[in-house]
Amino acid sequence: MELPLADDLHVHLRQGDLLALVAPTIRTGGAGRVLVMPNLKPPVTTVARAAAYRRELQAVAPGVEFLMTLYLSPELTAESLVGAAAAGVVAVKSYPKGVTTNSESGIESYAPHYPLFAAMETAGLVLSLHGEVPSDPDRGTSILDAEARFLTHLEQLHRDFPRLRIVLEHITTAAACACVERLGDTVAATITVHHLDLVVDHWAGRNHNFCKPVAKLPSDRAALRAAATSGHPRFFLGSDSAPHPRHDKETACACAGVFTQPLLMPYLADAFERFGRLDRLRDFACRFGREFYRLPRQTGTIRLERRPCVVPDAYGPVVPYRAGETLAWSCE
Amino acid sequence: MELPLADDLHVHLRQGDLLALVAPTIRTGGAGRVLVMPNLKPPVTTVARAAAYRRELQAVAPGVEFLMTLYLSPELTAESLVGAAAAGVVAVKSYPKGVTTNSESGIESYAPHYPLFAAMETAGLVLSLHGEVPSDPDRGTSILDAEARFLTHLEQLHRDFPRLRIVLEHITTAAACACVERLGDTVAATITVHHLDLVVDHWAGRNHNFCKPVAKLPSDRAALRAAATSGHPRFFLGSDSAPHPRHDKETACACAGVFTQPLLMPYLADAFERFGRLDRLRDFACRFGREFYRLPRQTGTIRLERRPCVVPDAYGPVVPYRAGETLAWSCE
Repeated sequence: MELPLADDLHVHLRQGDLLALVAPTIRTGGAGRVLVMPNLKPPVTTVARAAAYRRELQAVAPGVEFLMTLYLSPELTAESLVGAAAAGVVAVKSYPKGVTTNSESGIESYAPHYPLFAAMETAGLVLSLHGEVPSDPDRGTSILDAEARFLTHLEQLHRDFPRLRIVLEHITTAAACACVERLGDTVAATITVHHLDLVVDHWAGRNHNFCKPVAKLPSDRAALRAAATSGHPRFFLGSDSAPHPRHDKETACACAGVFTQPLLMPYLADAFERFGRLDRLRDFACRFGREFYRLPRQTGTIRLERRPCVVPDAYGPVVPYRAGETLAWSCE
Repeated sequence: MELPLADDLHVHLRQGDLLALVAPTIRTGGAGRVLVMPNLKPPVTTVARAAAYRRELQAVAPGVEFLMTLYLSPELTAESLVGAAAAGVVAVKSYPKGVTTNSESGIESYAPHYPLFAAMETAGLVLSLHGEVPSDPDRGTSILDAEARFLTHLEQLHRDFPRLRIVLEHITTAAACACVERLGDTVAATITVHHLDLVVDHWAGRNHNFCKPVAKLPSDRAALRAAATSGHPRFFLGSDSAPHPRHDKETACACAGVFTQPLLMPYLADAFERFGRLDRLRDFACRFGREFYRLPRQTGTIRLERRPCVVPDAYGPVVPYRAGETLAWSCE
């Protein structure tokens, strides 16, 4: 099966040694273009920092196109965003406090950012949201309903900025699927590889499957599978591939994230085939995201073969998703 | 505050080195009598094995009374149960396949055991249940609803054996609280220390808080707190204290269990005080369980003092619940 190079519209590529390990696996996994998380220390908030980060990435993975993002923060201005768009930045990322790696400085209310959103709408920048309210068990919120409770914020943003393209990233619930489908053509969602198969059982005591948002109920998984294989153009691939060294996973308080980059397309082919919808893989991984982000077609192709592929136990210090298991598909 | 020695009606005391470490901490934690899980390798299914296990335990913790149990399995007969009751065994334990430590040989249907339940009813043996159906995400069941889905089995058992005393152990849901309260006087529930404070957030990526049944939603926690402090005589203490070495917790696939034995009463005093119901601690920990199990009063007492107590980082290889945190109460 020959496919265009995939667009992975949500990746964590880290810094330093981990960057050098991970960035070259993008192409191996079948992606040729990736939307890069700005959650470095400190977060990427300027065009100059984004450009420097892109140079670092391209030095170790020259065959990959890196789409850069800025982190939504008080440091941004409407003027800086117009300049960022002109310089090739494609999206601004929002993640609430404490819900993803290096998000301690995350925001809690969108109101202060409305001037930025107006500028983004005009400049054609996409707003990418980590859609969870902060969990607060003492007030009745848990990580299981943090995404569903975020959806009213998404609806409000869309009402207030109907022309602003918004991506709700790594959705995990039936509620989010329904909400995104219900909203207008400027609202889309990414779906990860791992949320197509994991439910709460799979991360209970198994930290390599622990990520945020956490995988939820079987009924949520069914909705995600339906959305990813539906042919609906506003559901597309964003792997949220998030490498952490083993010692940060096999520990008392594990980091959140599942590493899928090196076998991205084999994982997906394996899953879509099990769902009986291999025919929908191409649009999900290679077309709908590109169209929503208004990107040109990629010229390269990959070949997926129905040949067993054993997931390595580790890539350097990082344990990948489904380590040791056998996938039905390999990527050339 | 002086209290009688507590009755802890659900403990895991293990074997070998772990037994030698854990059993002496029963008394330190404020309990004088414990109901001992039979989930050894192989499980305890005969009076002779139960007696041998009790001797082992008494050798290292002579001040503690060990209430022995048998594991519900095809090896038991109605006759053997009558003999067991006469020999001082107080309960038969049921745990479904795969849901607790060493439960690989667990049962899946109660029907074959009905002759045993009839014998237990006559002999005055208690049936203690791990109340979860096997989780099966592919059929729509997850670990989050495994307990709630078990309740129909409990109701059926109670209908069929209305005089059989049944304890639903380590309940974690509002549904279980309501069900036990609704059923007759022969049905009770134990509540652990840790389920009074944990919700799903607390075990996400934090394996020392991972146990089965898993801690659930804030609304479930609220129901458990209400039940434990309600003064209702059919809700009482069973800690399910379950030690595992650190290397079996801080790993890719962690063992389930929270270790609370050495500070059992300080944890509880700390919690009940936060709930504003210290006055209900005595009945929950020292009376209702004894009455349901028809045990004599214990003669010894403990003194709980409102003096800060730092939970140790570890007891030998085992990391306790709330390691490193400070409790408001100490136990003498």
